[in-house]
Amino acid sequence: MSPANVTIDCLQYCNWSRTIFEQMREGGLDAVHVTICYHEDFRQTAANIADWNRRFQYYDELIMPGRSALDVSAAQASNRTAIYFGFQNCSPIEADIGLVEICHQLGARFMQLSYNNQSLLATGCYEDDDPGITRMGRQVIAEMNRVGLVVDMSHSAERSTLEAIEISSRPIAITHANPYSWHPALRNKSNTVLKALSESGGMIGFSLYPHHLRDGSRCTLQSFCEMIADMAERIGIEHIGIGSDLCQDQPDSVVEWMRNGRWTTDRDFGEGSADAPGFPEQPSWFKDSRDFPNLVAGLKKVGFDGESIAAVMGNNWLRFFESAFSRT
Amino acid sequence: MSPANVTIDCLQYCNWSRTIFEQMREGGLDAVHVTICYHEDFRQTAANIADWNRRFQYYDELIMPGRSALDVSAAQASNRTAIYFGFQNCSPIEADIGLVEICHQLGARFMQLSYNNQSLLATGCYEDDDPGITRMGRQVIAEMNRVGLVVDMSHSAERSTLEAIEISSRPIAITHANPYSWHPALRNKSNTVLKALSESGGMIGFSLYPHHLRDGSRCTLQSFCEMIADMAERIGIEHIGIGSDLCQDQPDSVVEWMRNGRWTTDRDFGEGSADAPGFPEQPSWFKDSRDFPNLVAGLKKVGFDGESIAAVMGNNWLRFFESAFSRT
Repeated sequence: MSPANVTIDCLQYCNWSRTIFEQMREGGLDAVHVTICYHEDFRQTAANIADWNRRFQYYDELIMPGRSALDVSAAQASNRTAIYFGFQNCSPIEADIGLVEICHQLGARFMQLSYNNQSLLATGCYEDDDPGITRMGRQVIAEMNRVGLVVDMSHSAERSTLEAIEISSRPIAITHANPYSWHPALRNKSNTVLKALSESGGMIGFSLYPHHLRDGSRCTLQSFCEMIADMAERIGIEHIGIGSDLCQDQPDSVVEWMRNGRWTTDRDFGEGSADAPGFPEQPSWFKDSRDFPNLVAGLKKVGFDGESIAAVMGNNWLRFFESAFSRT
Repeated sequence: MSPANVTIDCLQYCNWSRTIFEQMREGGLDAVHVTICYHEDFRQTAANIADWNRRFQYYDELIMPGRSALDVSAAQASNRTAIYFGFQNCSPIEADIGLVEICHQLGARFMQLSYNNQSLLATGCYEDDDPGITRMGRQVIAEMNRVGLVVDMSHSAERSTLEAIEISSRPIAITHANPYSWHPALRNKSNTVLKALSESGGMIGFSLYPHHLRDGSRCTLQSFCEMIADMAERIGIEHIGIGSDLCQDQPDSVVEWMRNGRWTTDRDFGEGSADAPGFPEQPSWFKDSRDFPNLVAGLKKVGFDGESIAAVMGNNWLRFFESAFSRT
């Protein structure tokens, strides 16, 4: 049986509401990887999961919990969107490796080893120096590999990322970032990282967050799709998906919290600046989940065939999900 | 198909070790409900679950996680014992009703609404006055009913217990206690409670903890089995099982902690006394899980037929598990 094509967005952090879930349906999203924590400890993460449990009850006709890859098709078959949980930082496991399995039991399927800063496990992309994966980091990667929690290095620094790829016995993911060669932001990834990632069977989700885009909010759909075409040639189309990093309907206080958590008494602007501290404006062709068909049209225009478009829009992530979430 | 008979102990809190798990196998136990918390908050409970996750790895040939009733037969088929988690108190959900579902996701299948003292939900059996199920208690019972977490009133007071039976839309359990009429201890249950429990489809697990037994450590097997025969006549054999309350290999510091937690600056002796503050000695015929066949022999001697013995030794609990642990 040739399975149906699926559409997957491998990163969103929206101000969740009925409207947003309805837009996921309008955009044809079969699955979304949602961030459920940036700086939260385990107890706070459990509260965030409880909030999601309630959303699964309230919006039962629009969304469902995503646990295994099979839930993508189950969602498609029932006209819903499967929601997969991820952490943008390792704060939920605190200093307790036992919490890796506990978080997986509660539905977590992706965990970044660091978020911009040094963590107990790895270095973030805004640190000056990167000593690589820590002693605990090596242990936690092995445990994540065992239980089926994907190592995500989206906000990690170069050496830590290369070491994570090397140490992890299962392919890792960079759920939301773009190539540094296309737009030189600290959050975007070097050719070295992208090569090692793809050669190890990993996946990258290309981001539509303006600070990751060439020309920011004014980035054109054509430029974004040409970048994808270029990357498909360089690392192989099978390693490419979308991780939009959509932060819809969030007040600017949220991006400030994402950047500052409770770790600084100064004010860190991350990818923004004192002049532009808030969320940047989305490009006109990608404002919310209803704009996924624009990406399909854009990819077609730069020469992708139907099968390749389907691969980028979700089939590649689905294949990755199929091997990533189960226990070894 | 007529299913095989199963043997279930619906309460143990041992100092877990390979020896104890091997004894469960020698005693033919297909499933055990184990206490994983007395006073712990959510974070500490998660650590206890992580400890159990590690035991499931280390002792994989002896035990397995019990989640649904099907795991009892799965354990029997693989010569292992299925371990079902329970809380003796509601401390793991703190003041957060969202943690009810979270705890169920992590494997909890029984939760007592109170342990000896007043809780946020209900009154314990050592309080002077019992105002019944609290406002939050009513909400939590409904949520427990929804997710399939069994209400256990073993250490609760009379009125709270009767109200829990009334309020709960699903049958409840008293996993480990005996009839007050047989041995008048505060922890044992009145005829009123036992009648209401059985009429609502609930279950009681008879306890082998000496403070719950007539003549304590010197209680005879015959007396215990005659009590069961008497209760079978009074409330119906289908509501009766075993909940041994075995606390094997625990140092006396543990019973002190069970009684005192961190709630008092005095020293509470619970069912003990200043002269006998430690764990009481088990009756000679029930020292550990290898003695389950003694119960079978004892029940036979007082006149139970094979089918009735199988019902008491595990089949009744299995039937209860089958309807208790799933979502409504």
